[in-house]
Amino acid sequence: MQPTGQTIVYGIACFVMVLYILDLLGVAVFAVSGVLAAGRKSFDVLGVAIIATVTAIGGGTIRDVLLDRYPVFWVEDATYLLVILATAVLTILYTRFRELPRTSLLVADAFGLALFAISGAQVAEAQNFPGVIVVLMGTITGTAGGVLRDVLCNEVPLLLRQPDLYATAAIAGAAAYLGLQAFGLVQPYAAVGGIAVGTGLRLAAIFWGLRLPIYRTSD
Amino acid sequence: MQPTGQTIVYGIACFVMVLYILDLLGVAVFAVSGVLAAGRKSFDVLGVAIIATVTAIGGGTIRDVLLDRYPVFWVEDATYLLVILATAVLTILYTRFRELPRTSLLVADAFGLALFAISGAQVAEAQNFPGVIVVLMGTITGTAGGVLRDVLCNEVPLLLRQPDLYATAAIAGAAAYLGLQAFGLVQPYAAVGGIAVGTGLRLAAIFWGLRLPIYRTSD
Amino acid sequence: MQPTGQTIVYGIACFVMVLYILDLLGVAVFAVSGVLAAGRKSFDVLGVAIIATVTAIGGGTIRDVLLDRYPVFWVEDATYLLVILATAVLTILYTRFRELPRTSLLVADAFGLALFAISGAQVAEAQNFPGVIVVLMGTITGTAGGVLRDVLCNEVPLLLRQPDLYATAAIAGAAAYLGLQAFGLVQPYAAVGGIAVGTGLRLAAIFWGLRLPIYRTSD
Repeated sequence: MQPTGQTIVYGIACFVMVLYILDLLGVAVFAVSGVLAAGRKSFDVLGVAIIATVTAIGGGTIRDVLLDRYPVFWVEDATYLLVILATAVLTILYTRFRELPRTSLLVADAFGLALFAISGAQVAEAQNFPGVIVVLMGTITGTAGGVLRDVLCNEVPLLLRQPDLYATAAIAGAAAYLGLQAFGLVQPYAAVGGIAVGTGLRLAAIFWGLRLPIYRTSD
Repeated sequence: MQPTGQTIVYGIACFVMVLYILDLLGVAVFAVSGVLAAGRKSFDVLGVAIIATVTAIGGGTIRDVLLDRYPVFWVEDATYLLVILATAVLTILYTRFRELPRTSLLVADAFGLALFAISGAQVAEAQNFPGVIVVLMGTITGTAGGVLRDVLCNEVPLLLRQPDLYATAAIAGAAAYLGLQAFGLVQPYAAVGGIAVGTGLRLAAIFWGLRLPIYRTSD
Repeated sequence: MQPTGQTIVYGIACFVMVLYILDLLGVAVFAVSGVLAAGRKSFDVLGVAIIATVTAIGGGTIRDVLLDRYPVFWVEDATYLLVILATAVLTILYTRFRELPRTSLLVADAFGLALFAISGAQVAEAQNFPGVIVVLMGTITGTAGGVLRDVLCNEVPLLLRQPDLYATAAIAGAAAYLGLQAFGLVQPYAAVGGIAVGTGLRLAAIFWGLRLPIYRTSD
């Protein structure tokens, strides 16, 4: 049976909805990582909420500003801020009683990173920018929030310190997303592929210790 | 006697003028705080002027960029830069001979914070954003300059370190400004009320040690 | 012989081309400085490339965002990113075998600073902003990339720490560029003059130890 026009529209609507829910999930995951980073610094609860917010929406905000895309996504849709606030409160309450499971966190963070890389790439793609800008915007969306979190906590960004293919995974995910489309896949399947490549590479790097070479000058 | 149309226009013009002067005053107060922060770091006088400028206009600049509001306020009206430069020069000269009175500084800073929170909220309000964005933009306007100051001085932002209701006061002031209007007050009175709430809460927090709970994870 | 219209158009085209090539050269110089700063921090090669990129395009990006100038220059013309990547790779390879000559680096950096200050000033000038904004945008273009580099490396910005007239040279170059035009010079000659003043002042400050007074409060 051939898909009718209506089925296709329905399928695309489903895909957009799924992406939106995944995007909110990514925001929640990064908010958790912000709360935990702030928790090592003895900030008050509002300070924790600020760090959670910056971590979760920082990357997408920088992307939107760089691409002149207004209103910025969380200004247009307050759901993002609501999800962050709820996540921060729940994380603060939960961690008073129990520790968050470290492995689940790493998996969730890898997934959030890949998700943001693809959704960020899609934003640039929709504005018809060339591939290198699409990949770069995906990478910025996935990583810049964590960089802002670390700058506010006065630490060298984890992105630069940790050698476990963090930015690399974002780049690979966004590039795979573009590459799969170049090979003829439709956008939804390419997005799934890109998210799988990004998440997979990041997790593989953590578990098998894959690394890029370190560069160190003698000085 | 009923106010005529002319009286109302005159009243609004006065209010706008008063707000502008208060805004310049707020800029001056934050410039002083920038000079003092830089003075602990042994920068040269131009470095001090840079920190003073970033502290004074950083919050409003981030607000304008996030809201796509161009030209950015200090690009449109060079008076702001002039006030900052004059304030920085006077502060540098004054502190060579005498210390600035600590209590007056805290009061001035609390007032500047509340002022910026309300003027920032008004900017977002004029663009018809929902209440949560209005309050957030007020808070960013009031606090982000100080955050940039501390990041440039390579310190954990005072906003996050000090527990004396700094961001909280900005949020409360902006929220009171909106709330009073919801209760039927006209904008000028609501602004006065918001500034009073913000300044009052900040000063009360300092003098009575009001604090939000600290969040600290075991790790 | 009077210059014909065609000669003038040809001359301007040449000048624009020369400026573009100089701009790419400036980007390369700042990318080298980013690589060297990152090399002291033991980042991996991708981290090094990230720092090189931020150093090289950070100032121009902030300028473009502040002036609402879209697409941002490196989004519009991917040559910039290509030059940075090539420079970073070559610098990493070269410094594995030999040290970069320190004096040449200082001269190149002074030249890059002055170049960016003039090209940044020209961008603001083309949008008819007043002189103070033109000079400020030149200064931001010349210096903000280095500030972002140092913030990401978690250090007090060199711009503020070193007393050897860094921002001062950018200001002087941009101001000279405007001043020479006010005295009747055409833009290309004024640009050459501004670049000479900026580079010269910076090098003179390094070699003769010219400094602005340090400001230090007792606290």
